[in-house]
Amino acid sequence: MPKGLPPVVPEDGLTTRQRRNQPLLIVHTGDGKGKSTAAYGLALRGWNQGWDIGVFQFVKSAKWRIGEQTVLERLGALHAETGEGGPVEWHKMGAGWSWSRKEGTAEDHAEAAAEGWSEVKRRLAEQRHDLYVLDEFTYPIAWGWVELADVLDTLASRPGHQHVVITGRRADQRLVDLADLVTDMTVVKHPFQSGQKGQRGIEW
Amino acid sequence: MPKGLPPVVPEDGLTTRQRRNQPLLIVHTGDGKGKSTAAYGLALRGWNQGWDIGVFQFVKSAKWRIGEQTVLERLGALHAETGEGGPVEWHKMGAGWSWSRKEGTAEDHAEAAAEGWSEVKRRLAEQRHDLYVLDEFTYPIAWGWVELADVLDTLASRPGHQHVVITGRRADQRLVDLADLVTDMTVVKHPFQSGQKGQRGIEW
Repeated sequence: MPKGLPPVVPEDGLTTRQRRNQPLLIVHTGDGKGKSTAAYGLALRGWNQGWDIGVFQFVKSAKWRIGEQTVLERLGALHAETGEGGPVEWHKMGAGWSWSRKEGTAEDHAEAAAEGWSEVKRRLAEQRHDLYVLDEFTYPIAWGWVELADVLDTLASRPGHQHVVITGRRADQRLVDLADLVTDMTVVKHPFQSGQKGQRGIEW
Repeated sequence: MPKGLPPVVPEDGLTTRQRRNQPLLIVHTGDGKGKSTAAYGLALRGWNQGWDIGVFQFVKSAKWRIGEQTVLERLGALHAETGEGGPVEWHKMGAGWSWSRKEGTAEDHAEAAAEGWSEVKRRLAEQRHDLYVLDEFTYPIAWGWVELADVLDTLASRPGHQHVVITGRRADQRLVDLADLVTDMTVVKHPFQSGQKGQRGIEW
C-alpha cells in the first residue's frame, strides 16, 4: 500500500482536508504501561501546534505531582512569557479540583468525579480547549460515578474542533465504539512481576 | 493486592531501593499507536528529573520534525539557560546523522543505521546519557542492518545506570526476553481504517 493512502475512502462527501481535520476521540486502554504517558505525549505535540491544552486527572489519590505536570505547566508558562506553543491548564481530583476552592474537602470521590465531569462538559460546550486529556476517566465511568450515556452524548455532540483523549483500563465497549482511535496497551513484561517497585523518572 | 507491594520478592540479595534503582531496558512494540509517543513521554519525565536525554530516531525518512523534537530540544535549551531539567540531544537518521557532518549523503540506509548504532554503543560505553530513546530501532534489527547479538550483548553489559527505551513493531523475542518492561500497543480502532489521513498535532 503506498504510504499516505488510506485503505478505504469513505463516501461522506468530505474532502481529504476536511476529513483530516476532524476532531478525534482517542482512547488508550488495556492493562499495560503507556496509556497516560502517550496521552501526555499528545499534549506535548498539541502544545507545539499552539493548541490550548486542558488536562483533567480523574485519579483517586493524586498525591504526587507527576513529571508531566511540571513540564506541561512549565510549557504553559513559557507560552505566557514568549508566545511559544499554547496555554496549558492541569487539574487533578486528588485534593479537590483546583477550580472549586474546596481543596482538601472532597472526601467523596464519587462526588468529586461527577463535579470534574460537569466542569469538562461546561468547557466542551464553550469550546474552551483544543485538546482535553481525561486521564483515568474510565474508572469513574466503570464505577457509575458519571453516567456513561451522558458522557457518550456529550462527546458525540461536542461542538467545534475539540480533540479528547481518555485513558484507563477496561474502557466500556460503547466508548470504544464511539471513539475514532483506540489503542490497547498490553502488558508483555513488567518489572513489578519480578519484584521491582516503581522508580522516579520512570513511573512518575 | 495492597498498592505498592510487588507480587514476588526476588531472592537476589538486593534491597528494595537497590532493586528500584536498577537501570531499565524498556520495549514498546505492537502495531498500535503510542509506541514512540509514550517513549517521548518518558523522556519528558526524565528531563524533569534532571536526566541527560539522548534521542536517536532510526527512521528511514525523517523529513519532518515531529512536535516532540521541537519541544524536547526547547526543554534542553531551557536547561542550558536556567538549569531546569536536564540536557537533551536529538539525532535522526533521515538526512545523515547530525554528528557525522555528512548530511544528505547517507543514501545507504543500512550503513546509516549501523553508523547510528555504533554511536549509541560508544555513548553507552562512556555513559553519556541517563535515558536513551532508540526510536524505531526494531526495524534495522529486523532487516539485519545491525546485529541482534551485538545489540543484546551491548545492552546486557551496559555500565552504570543508563535507561534504554526501544520502540518499533515486531520486536525480536530475544530483545523482549532481555527487556525489563515490555508493552505491546495493539490497534483496536484507527481512523485510517475509515479513510481518514493523519493530522497535524495528532500524528506529528
